[in-house]
Order: sequence, then C-alpha cells, then structure tokens
Amino acid sequence: MTNNTAYAQLMAWVRQTEALGYVAERLGWDQETMMPRGAAEQRGEEMAAMEAVLHARRTDPRIADWLEAADPADAAGQAQLRLIRRAYVRATRVPSDLAQEIARVTSLAQGIWADARANDRVLDFLPMLKEVVALRRQEAAALAMGGDPYDALLDGYEPGETAERLGAMFDRMRPRLVALRDRILGRPAPRPVKGVFGEAAQLRFARDLASAFGYDWSRGRIDLAVHPFSSGGGSDSRITTRVSESDPFNCIYSTIHEVGHSSYELNIDPDYALTPVGHGCSMGVHESQSRIYENQIGRSPAFTAWMYGEMRERFGDFGIGSAAEFTRAVNRVQPGFIRTEADEVHYNLHIMMRFDLERALVRGDLEVGDLEAAWNDRFRADFGVAVDRPSNGMLQDVHWSVGLMGYFPTYTLGNVYAGCLYQAMRVAVPDLDDQLARGDTSAATGWLHEVLQRHGGLRAPRETIAAACGFEPDEGPLLDYLETKFGALYGL
Amino acid sequence: MTNNTAYAQLMAWVRQTEALGYVAERLGWDQETMMPRGAAEQRGEEMAAMEAVLHARRTDPRIADWLEAADPADAAGQAQLRLIRRAYVRATRVPSDLAQEIARVTSLAQGIWADARANDRVLDFLPMLKEVVALRRQEAAALAMGGDPYDALLDGYEPGETAERLGAMFDRMRPRLVALRDRILGRPAPRPVKGVFGEAAQLRFARDLASAFGYDWSRGRIDLAVHPFSSGGGSDSRITTRVSESDPFNCIYSTIHEVGHSSYELNIDPDYALTPVGHGCSMGVHESQSRIYENQIGRSPAFTAWMYGEMRERFGDFGIGSAAEFTRAVNRVQPGFIRTEADEVHYNLHIMMRFDLERALVRGDLEVGDLEAAWNDRFRADFGVAVDRPSNGMLQDVHWSVGLMGYFPTYTLGNVYAGCLYQAMRVAVPDLDDQLARGDTSAATGWLHEVLQRHGGLRAPRETIAAACGFEPDEGPLLDYLETKFGALYGL
Repeated sequence: MTNNTAYAQLMAWVRQTEALGYVAERLGWDQETMMPRGAAEQRGEEMAAMEAVLHARRTDPRIADWLEAADPADAAGQAQLRLIRRAYVRATRVPSDLAQEIARVTSLAQGIWADARANDRVLDFLPMLKEVVALRRQEAAALAMGGDPYDALLDGYEPGETAERLGAMFDRMRPRLVALRDRILGRPAPRPVKGVFGEAAQLRFARDLASAFGYDWSRGRIDLAVHPFSSGGGSDSRITTRVSESDPFNCIYSTIHEVGHSSYELNIDPDYALTPVGHGCSMGVHESQSRIYENQIGRSPAFTAWMYGEMRERFGDFGIGSAAEFTRAVNRVQPGFIRTEADEVHYNLHIMMRFDLERALVRGDLEVGDLEAAWNDRFRADFGVAVDRPSNGMLQDVHWSVGLMGYFPTYTLGNVYAGCLYQAMRVAVPDLDDQLARGDTSAATGWLHEVLQRHGGLRAPRETIAAACGFEPDEGPLLDYLETKFGALYGL
Repeated sequence: MTNNTAYAQLMAWVRQTEALGYVAERLGWDQETMMPRGAAEQRGEEMAAMEAVLHARRTDPRIADWLEAADPADAAGQAQLRLIRRAYVRATRVPSDLAQEIARVTSLAQGIWADARANDRVLDFLPMLKEVVALRRQEAAALAMGGDPYDALLDGYEPGETAERLGAMFDRMRPRLVALRDRILGRPAPRPVKGVFGEAAQLRFARDLASAFGYDWSRGRIDLAVHPFSSGGGSDSRITTRVSESDPFNCIYSTIHEVGHSSYELNIDPDYALTPVGHGCSMGVHESQSRIYENQIGRSPAFTAWMYGEMRERFGDFGIGSAAEFTRAVNRVQPGFIRTEADEVHYNLHIMMRFDLERALVRGDLEVGDLEAAWNDRFRADFGVAVDRPSNGMLQDVHWSVGLMGYFPTYTLGNVYAGCLYQAMRVAVPDLDDQLARGDTSAATGWLHEVLQRHGGLRAPRETIAAACGFEPDEGPLLDYLETKFGALYGL
C-alpha cells in the first residue's frame, strides 16, 4: 500500500461516511419539519440504525492503518488527516457500550426534561439528569485519559479550547458587561413595537431577508419548526424559523441567525465537499457567523434603518415613529430569565453562569441535587432578580438533558469571535454603514465568505479567526463594540 | 446457538436493515418533494452510500447461518423466514460488481431517457438502453440459474408468478377487451368537463378525498410532485399528487390511487412493523389496492354521483348538467398513445404490448435496435392508430431506462386482482352502492383492511388474493365488471 493509495482509500471511506452523516442529519430535519406525528417511534429506530452504521464506520480499525500509511503532500490533505485522526481517536476512546447507553439515556431524558419543564417540576427531572451527568463524566474520563474531564467534553465542540483560557476570558468580560448593563438600566427603556404581524407576511419578509443576506436558495430552503435550526451542508443546507404574531423580531432574527450558520456551510470551497474539512471548523466559529449576521450586521443602526422602511411598507403602523426609535426597539436591553430571549448585553452573562455550573458538575464539584440552589443563587447575584419558577431557571435549556455539557461556552466564544471579525470587516469595508443602510449586505457577507467561510475546517478554530482578522482574537473588540453601540443608543 | 437465539438474532438484524431501508426510501421522497435543485449531485452520493450499506447488510453471510438454525414455531415466523431466504438468495446470486454497475448505469440512463423523450430522439437513448438490457439480461441469467430469464426478473416484483401463466391470461383477456372497446367507440363520446380548476381548491378536495378513503393523516402526508407516488410504510407512508388546472381528474384519481397504496402499508398489522412481512406482499397485490380504490370504488357511478355534488359546490358550473353525465365524463373511453392517461378499458392493452416486447428483449428474441419498429407495429395493430412521435411511443415510460423489466405485467395483474376483490366485496357489503352514494367508503376500505391489508406479506401474492376473496383469482371478474359498467354507461 503506497502513501497515495492509503490516502485515497481513507478519503473514499470517509467520503461515504460523510454522505451517510448528511442522511442522518436530513432525518433530523424531517423529524422537526415534515414527519407525521405518529411516526415518532419508528423514526427513533431509523435514527438508531443510522447511528449504529455511522459508529461502526467511524471506529473501523482500517482507519488506523490508513492514517498510519497516508502522507498527502498538500496542506488540505494534512488538515483532512488531522481531523480524521481526531475524530477516530475520540470515537474509539469511548467504549461502544457507553456510547450506546448515552444515546439511549439522553434520548429518553429529553422527553422527561420537556415534561418537567412544562410542569415546573425539578424533581421529575433530577434522577434522569443524575444519570446523564454520571454517563458524561464516564465519557469525559475515557476521553481525557488523565487530563481535565470538562476540557475533554469542550474539545468535542471547540477543538483545542480549554476551560482555563475561557474562564479567564469570561472573568475579564464580566465587569465591563455588568457596568454597561447597569448604566443602560439607569436610562429610560425604548418603546416596544405594537400590533399583530401576520404569519404569511412575516414569512415573506423572512425569505426576503434571507435573500438580502445572500442565502443560496438553489441549495437551501426555509420551513417552520418549533425551534429554529440549520441542518446539513455541502450543497444542501436548510434552515427553519418560527413566527410569533406579536413579536416580529423572533422570526426576523431567528432567520438571519440561521442564514449565517447555513451560509457558512454552503460557502465552503466545493473541493472540500463530503470531507471533514468541508464543515464549519467548530461550534464557536459557527456561532461567530450566525451572530455577526444577526447582531453586528442585522441589529446595526444602519441595517435596522433600512428594515424600518421595509416593515412600514409591509406591516403599516406599529407604533414606532422613526428609524432611530426602531433601532432602539430592536436593541432594547432588559433583564430576563430566559437565555434565548436575552439581548446582546445580557446574553453572555447567561452563558458564564452555565459554564461555571456545568464545569463544576462534570468535575464532581457540584452534585445534581444541589444544582437548582446553585443556579438560583448565581442568578440572583448576576441578574439581581430571584428566579420565579424552574422553567425560568435551571429547566429552561434542553442542553443538559441531551448531555450537551461543554457546549454553552461556545456561544460566548462565537460572540467574541464575531466582535473580532466585525472590527476587521469595518476596515475591509470602509463604507459598510452606507451599504447596510440600503439593505445591501453583499460586501459584508462577501468578505466573510472570502476570508473565513470558504476555508471550512482547513485551520484550527482560533487560527481560522486570526487568519481572517489579521490579529489574535480576544474579547476586546466585542466589548468595545457593545459599549460604543449601546452607549450611542442609550445616550450614555 | 439455539433455534430461538438464531431467529431472534436474525430478526434483530433484519429489523435494523428494514429501518435503514425506510431511511433510503425517505431520501427518495425528499428528492421528489423538498430537495433544493442544486443538491442533486450530492444526493446521488448519499443514495449510493445508503445502497452500499443496504447491500452489504442484505448479503451478510451470517444470514445464511441464522436461516439454517432458526426454526420459529408460528406461521408468521415461517413467513418471515420464507421472505428473508428469498431476498437473501436473490441478493447473493447477483455479483456485487454487476449490482453496482446496474445501479450506476440505470441512474445515468434515466437522465438520458428524460432528455431523449423531451427531444423526441430515440437514437439518443438507444445506446444506453442497450447497456441496460445487456446488464439486466446478465442479472436475469444469474438469478434464473438455468430457468427462464424473464421469469427471474418478474419474480422480483411478483414472487411465484410466471410469464407463461400471465401470457395465457392476457391472451384470454385481449379479445373481450378489444370487443368491448370497439363497441364503446361506436357510441357517442361523453362530454368532457370544461373550465379552470384552481390548484388550491383541487388540493383541498384531494385532502378531503384522501380522508374519505380513510387515509391516516397521523402517519402520512400529501405533497406535490411531478409524478404521483407513495413512499414508506410502517407508521410513515406519504403520498404525492399533481394538479392540472384544466383536468381535475388527474389530481383526484392520482390521489385516490396513491391513498390505496399507502393505506395498504399503513394498515398492515403493527406486530409486523420493520419486518419483511410488514410490507405489501407484491407489486400486483399492491396495485390491486390502488386500483380498487381508484376504479372500482372511485370511478363507480355511486361514488362519482356523490363527487359530482361536491365538485359543483367547490368549483361551480363546469359544463356538466347531471350526476349521470358526470359519471360518463369520468369514465370516458378513448384511444390514446399514453398508458398513464388510459381509461380502464384501454389500459390493459397498453400493458400487454409492453409485456410481450420486454419479454422478447430479455430473452434475446428482440434487439434494442428493432424495438421502435416493433412498438409502432404493435401499437397500430392493437390501437388502430399510428404512433406520431417517440415520446408518444416507446419513449413514454421511465421503466425500461431504470431497468424495470418484468414490472409492467403487475399492473394488469393488479387490475385482475382488483376485479376479484370487488366481486367478493359486493357480496360482503351488500349495500355498497348506497354507502358510496353518500361518499362513505368505510365499509369497502374496512373490508379490504380486514381480509387483505392487515396481513401484509404473510401469504404469497396469489394466496393472499384467494384468501381475501374466497376463490382462486382469474380474469373473469374484471372482464365482467368492465362489460357491465361500460355496457350501462354507454348503453351497449
């Protein structure tokens, strides 16, 4: 077996696995958008069968032999090997029984969590959560091989990232965010929009906004689902959105956010299709794309001024008299229990408390039975309000029920990366605000496509951002951006 | 390994394969209904990857060992073994290289056929068709092991059926069909419907008709596609339909037809879910369900009288003054080039000529280069009209391009079985016409559910029909039904 033969065989194997991975993802999309409700149980068996096939392929011992022998000459080939080796090592370190048990328990736990949240009953959820945490601790130990167990889980979402570095960054961010928040809350609140915004008109606007952000309809589509998400990649990446007739911003910003995720996948160099490099390189970098589309561009004074005109034409009078007032309504800052409804200033405070709590859970410094009290204490300290009920507290997020521990910090990392990219973008596109004020995002999204999106997983996450920005990423640009923007909006 | 262990292991293996088979089928559904057009190439790789997984599972040598050792006590278990053995023998007789080559060539040939048909250029298609025929001849030889090659292909769609028996039956049918057709064409033609039938109203009516035929919406859905089809089974079987604004019968009868197919799958005993017995037992029996829903029930004078009232309410005046006149419009008999547009009297004549031609092709009695002339000669003889262009002749059907040889006769077999079932149904439901005249199909479809659909593949196809009817099936009841119905409608 020559080096080239080994590499070719490995890539042929991986290509088929990638294709099957997309099939499994498509099943998930179907389940949330199209599937008749009576098909849920059978769908569970279909998903489990796909997972079994994928797991067997991902841990096939021939991968080790191919990795040993393959020696591609170019950087892309080296990046493929790096990603394949990483995935193989992670997949083979976790015993198959444990992986199956985690799949089984988390699938069960999600339903129990949903019921517990609906009924505000923490005790109904704790036994299941204990199991999930115990299993993920076992998995973390298997993956970490003596290293930090939380880092082992975090690394699954953000390769190369460590809790120590993130924790230090969060500690630097918190005082500036809290100070900004306190100054804003001392000022009068903006007036909210009023009225009923029809579903069909909102969906038409959502489609037009997706187009305005360059979404490629020939390789995507938009449907309704309970939770907005993006799904797939290569030449088929779809998004979902949702509609609240009293709050048009829900649909608008969910759509723009998911267009960011989906466009990242669709804009990766087609040469990387159906390979590990052909995906967004980490959850944090992925989130940087969705967030910069949604926030730095979509909630900017320039773009929202254009949106105001569009919305007046489509929805008539909704109680807002000027573009400037509309921009403030879009960027209304207010304390609230729910992470997914948080504004740009509060959002990262939600993440930081989850990060500390889940890190303590995984390391064994906090037991599941003490989680609610720890959550409520921390929330009062950080937000100055007492949690009124568990569905507004520790039961609000699906993540822990499905075993997603180590995932939350990638949201704030995505915001930090978006801050860096936005700083570089303003230099690269000097007349950005003029363009956005015409509803034209093409230079902004085109720049992201060119410097970041097309490279997929070619580089490690932090290097991907550094190469795009021309500087090493840190929290400074995000905090500067927030202070400047909200300082102007609230007259601080 | 005890008998029971072997059987349990075999069924666990098969269950997972069945689940993966549904996943592949769902991909096909998505491709025709939801997939963005730019995703076609990637989808090809996804389908090929699924087929490779399925083929490997279906030819896994452990299946032979399990089959050897398993000895279930009950009839259902014996039926499972019979179907598993049959599928395993068929899958392993065909060399894997040949199977892959057939998959590759037929996937290519379908596009070339579509272009050739669009441009009416037979010569563009013939080289590809030669390859397909050559490959299917090889496959037939591998399957037949010295037996008749056409029977070997036919057996893939209609287990246990032979061309000799079908040919003899078709020979008995032809003179009576031709005589009936000639008498009808000597009478004045019914007046057609006139007007524009809006798409949204047609789709609402289609949904209501699906409900009237008992379609289970909790386990199905209806979407638009270029060609109507049904897809899936177990607890997720979906249908598609199409709309012509000048011809409402296209949407109406496509929908009812597919509801017949889909209801068969959905009504199989849930104990058989994700097993070989949990599917319709053959193409012919499947077609008997779609045809009896569509024709014997859906085009009956009683049901169309009810439909007339519904359509007048929904579409206003469409140039038809009475229910009796409407029934004649629905059952208009006229010669035509296109099989899929043929009436109940002409339809089987289309099938018979395809059966003779494809049988000669597979056996080597007819070469592909002579097919067009053979088609055109035969059409003139059987229909009394000269084919005006290839898209109205040998290029009209997709079947041969995708290698479906041996499939066509199951359509007429389905009609014959539907004739038998209808004769038995009229005895079992004495006031059938009164019920249908109220738009109530529940006794009719309920009887089919009870005597046939719930058993799935428990019995061989012909036995399935015999058990449902209480007599051995033959062509007599279908011909009697056609002569009676059209005799009355045309005043013969």
